[in-house]
Amino acid sequence: MQTSKLFSFVAGDTGTWRIDSIGQVIGESLPIAHRLSIFQGHRASEASLEAWELRGFISNIRYATQAELEALRSRQAGLGRREATCAALIPIRKSADWWSLAQDERRALIEEQSRHISVGLEYLPAIARQLYHSRDLGEPFDFLTWFEYAPQDAEAFEELVRRLRETKEWTFVEREVDIRLSLSRP
Amino acid sequence: MQTSKLFSFVAGDTGTWRIDSIGQVIGESLPIAHRLSIFQGHRASEASLEAWELRGFISNIRYATQAELEALRSRQAGLGRREATCAALIPIRKSADWWSLAQDERRALIEEQSRHISVGLEYLPAIARQLYHSRDLGEPFDFLTWFEYAPQDAEAFEELVRRLRETKEWTFVEREVDIRLSLSRP
Repeated sequence: MQTSKLFSFVAGDTGTWRIDSIGQVIGESLPIAHRLSIFQGHRASEASLEAWELRGFISNIRYATQAELEALRSRQAGLGRREATCAALIPIRKSADWWSLAQDERRALIEEQSRHISVGLEYLPAIARQLYHSRDLGEPFDFLTWFEYAPQDAEAFEELVRRLRETKEWTFVEREVDIRLSLSRP
Repeated sequence: MQTSKLFSFVAGDTGTWRIDSIGQVIGESLPIAHRLSIFQGHRASEASLEAWELRGFISNIRYATQAELEALRSRQAGLGRREATCAALIPIRKSADWWSLAQDERRALIEEQSRHISVGLEYLPAIARQLYHSRDLGEPFDFLTWFEYAPQDAEAFEELVRRLRETKEWTFVEREVDIRLSLSRP
């Protein structure tokens, strides 16, 4: 797999990010760990030293229209902002019913019925977001979403995840874990 | 990667399918080889014995609407029909411009402007088809499409590929190889 597009999220005793909590939202949670490292590309296997490892790749846009993409691109912030010392890693898996739907049915559920893209836009640029695709790798989750924000935007982030979890789209989520992390910059 | 969804197309001196021709359509072709094997899942590396290997995975529907999917599912035939002794493997790569388009722009190019799905439907069930995604694996092509048909449908198949290559969608194709194969059943 191409090095630049594949990322591994490795939880264990070492890593840049401190894991503050691992929340069980829907279905089975993940084992407790204290630190998280993010690796780009392949890494040498050290599975015995780690609590868990989740992998995903950055891919092309799957649902956003030209107008939505323009709005996203004009407003979103990149990862790694100095003030963004809070993060969340939210792995989710959707049901087989979801994946058997046609493209227009999934699009309608995501945006016309659930406003997933519009709601996310309201929180830009404060809440930076990167989506990683896992389902095609045979991973236990379909997606990993990584969020970064400053401590003063923590309440806004809670509101964002609460609003998304109330949507029609979320009735198709059959597993969700909510991992919160923080960074102490020197 | 999940064994059931990943496939490898390995060209060399052995394999079930005889390679009758490797046609250069757009951009660089592939090395000459005489036989092709199709492996499901991972295979032990024997790279030195083979001419080339292309990999891809089966994934969810990316563009078809509910109505189109219903039409496809009601008419399409599976792979491996006894009479389908002709095959084609057509790897293609699309341009960076294509991949930077939003979902609705790619959909409009594929169907509303190019009738890719409708044209394919006209040739069902005679021409069976399976799409494999390669781009997210960092492969040299974005897609591998595998077609199977009986010898009496060979002319229809030529018409199908000719019609697709004349479309607006195809102006985004920057590499395409057309590999024709046949099978002698006992």
